[in-house]
Amino acid sequence: MKTWDTVAIVGVGLIGASVGLALRERKLAREVVGIGRRSSTLRVARRRGAVTRTTLDLADGVAHAELTVVCTPVEQIAEHVRAAAGSCPRGALITDAGSTKSEIVSSLDEALERHNPRQAMYVGSHPMAGSEQSGPQNARPDLFEGCVTIMTPSEKTPSKTYQSVSRFWRALGAKVIRMVPREHDLAVAQISHLPHVVAAALAAVTPAERLPIAAGGWRDTTRIAEGMPLLWRQILSQNRFNVLQALEAFCQELSEFRKALTYDDHDRLEQLLSKGMEIRRQARHRG
Amino acid sequence: MKTWDTVAIVGVGLIGASVGLALRERKLAREVVGIGRRSSTLRVARRRGAVTRTTLDLADGVAHAELTVVCTPVEQIAEHVRAAAGSCPRGALITDAGSTKSEIVSSLDEALERHNPRQAMYVGSHPMAGSEQSGPQNARPDLFEGCVTIMTPSEKTPSKTYQSVSRFWRALGAKVIRMVPREHDLAVAQISHLPHVVAAALAAVTPAERLPIAAGGWRDTTRIAEGMPLLWRQILSQNRFNVLQALEAFCQELSEFRKALTYDDHDRLEQLLSKGMEIRRQARHRG
Repeated sequence: MKTWDTVAIVGVGLIGASVGLALRERKLAREVVGIGRRSSTLRVARRRGAVTRTTLDLADGVAHAELTVVCTPVEQIAEHVRAAAGSCPRGALITDAGSTKSEIVSSLDEALERHNPRQAMYVGSHPMAGSEQSGPQNARPDLFEGCVTIMTPSEKTPSKTYQSVSRFWRALGAKVIRMVPREHDLAVAQISHLPHVVAAALAAVTPAERLPIAAGGWRDTTRIAEGMPLLWRQILSQNRFNVLQALEAFCQELSEFRKALTYDDHDRLEQLLSKGMEIRRQARHRG
Repeated sequence: MKTWDTVAIVGVGLIGASVGLALRERKLAREVVGIGRRSSTLRVARRRGAVTRTTLDLADGVAHAELTVVCTPVEQIAEHVRAAAGSCPRGALITDAGSTKSEIVSSLDEALERHNPRQAMYVGSHPMAGSEQSGPQNARPDLFEGCVTIMTPSEKTPSKTYQSVSRFWRALGAKVIRMVPREHDLAVAQISHLPHVVAAALAAVTPAERLPIAAGGWRDTTRIAEGMPLLWRQILSQNRFNVLQALEAFCQELSEFRKALTYDDHDRLEQLLSKGMEIRRQARHRG
């Protein structure tokens, strides 16, 4: 398997530190540089063995990196990729781990076409491996094992760039799926961003005095609502048109339930419940 | 700890067979009689060691039972409790495990006041221990350990009846909480029935072609949608006014999300997400 001399990770939260741990545990990189804004977070990542070196200076951190993985919140990704492209070795690879892709990829395609002095090679990625947890203290070397990573090359991405970054994710144990950025954003609105909004709203309307009787059903259904509000606000904002569309379909389905409950229409209620069960079963057989 | 000579279980699905397994494993009953409509299900329950004897005849099955636990679908519970009350030993205890209580308890209070030749003592229970699984093959002796069981005595329930049945659930490891039937139904509409409708609707609107990229978030949020549609249709029907009210509050919250997304109102979005996170965290600290 190809190994790397130096990989830089910008942002050593749950995802970034897990990339580092996986690289180190699988002996895929000699040096893993952790780049961040807070010394305290970098210290945790280093203590956990996720990185071999840390720095607060992005330009310094990426200077020798054949591959830079940007794992910062979605609103900062484009800026960090541009900065890495300005300081990395000639022809180096850059990818990211953002949960949205259209806005990031199109702004980077444009920016790097205008100004890319070191001919850095960028392609977007989205490892679907988050959780309601965060921070390097929760990182795991096996976070990407069996996890789907969607890669979103644009028409401007050389196929060699796609192949190299795809090999990287697969080396961490991920299953790579290819989508155009626009399709990615629509798909994750349905399968990830809508569930997040639903979980948050469901938790929010639960009267606190009911929590002592909350059982497994409520806990599972609302688990992801514990995700960090700032990160999720950015994701939802960037993908808001797709999320709104998914919410519309969901509210439509709920109004079918309301109608069936109002008229106590047994057949219709059972039909609606069966529809959900059917999709859930299909998912089980696939997953 | 008090032990029982004979306990009868009407309906040996997931809950009924788990009651049997728990009784047997904890050596709390000499004889556990499984009563059902299908020989095949009774055979599985017996093979698993959940019951010591089986019968298709309810009257025969409860004839020597100091305690009968009715674990059938909610629409059949009142009828089965009445039948048990007609054939059990004089002054025997009867409880049930239904997810709704108002309709069941009030119809039984009335029926047993009119006709209770053996002076059977009924009190309603709801062990909140279901799952998306079903059938005696999924039963577990530890299903009730740490699980909340809501008991719903009415003004007509003698306190000795409440105490005895409460001791029974606690002997299986459950934490007993007392509520009046009306409060129970409102509470579970919010904490259990609404999440079920939400999970079912969320699964139902997920396009099947997205399932290959479904990750932990989607899976957790929709897990309970795999519950049996017929059982859940009955539960939702019996509790439809409370469920409609909970749905109303939930849809209101979703429309706040829609508004915030439409205007890309960052502060408001973060506020809405934080509200969900806050409740979720409170639940974690309690559970």
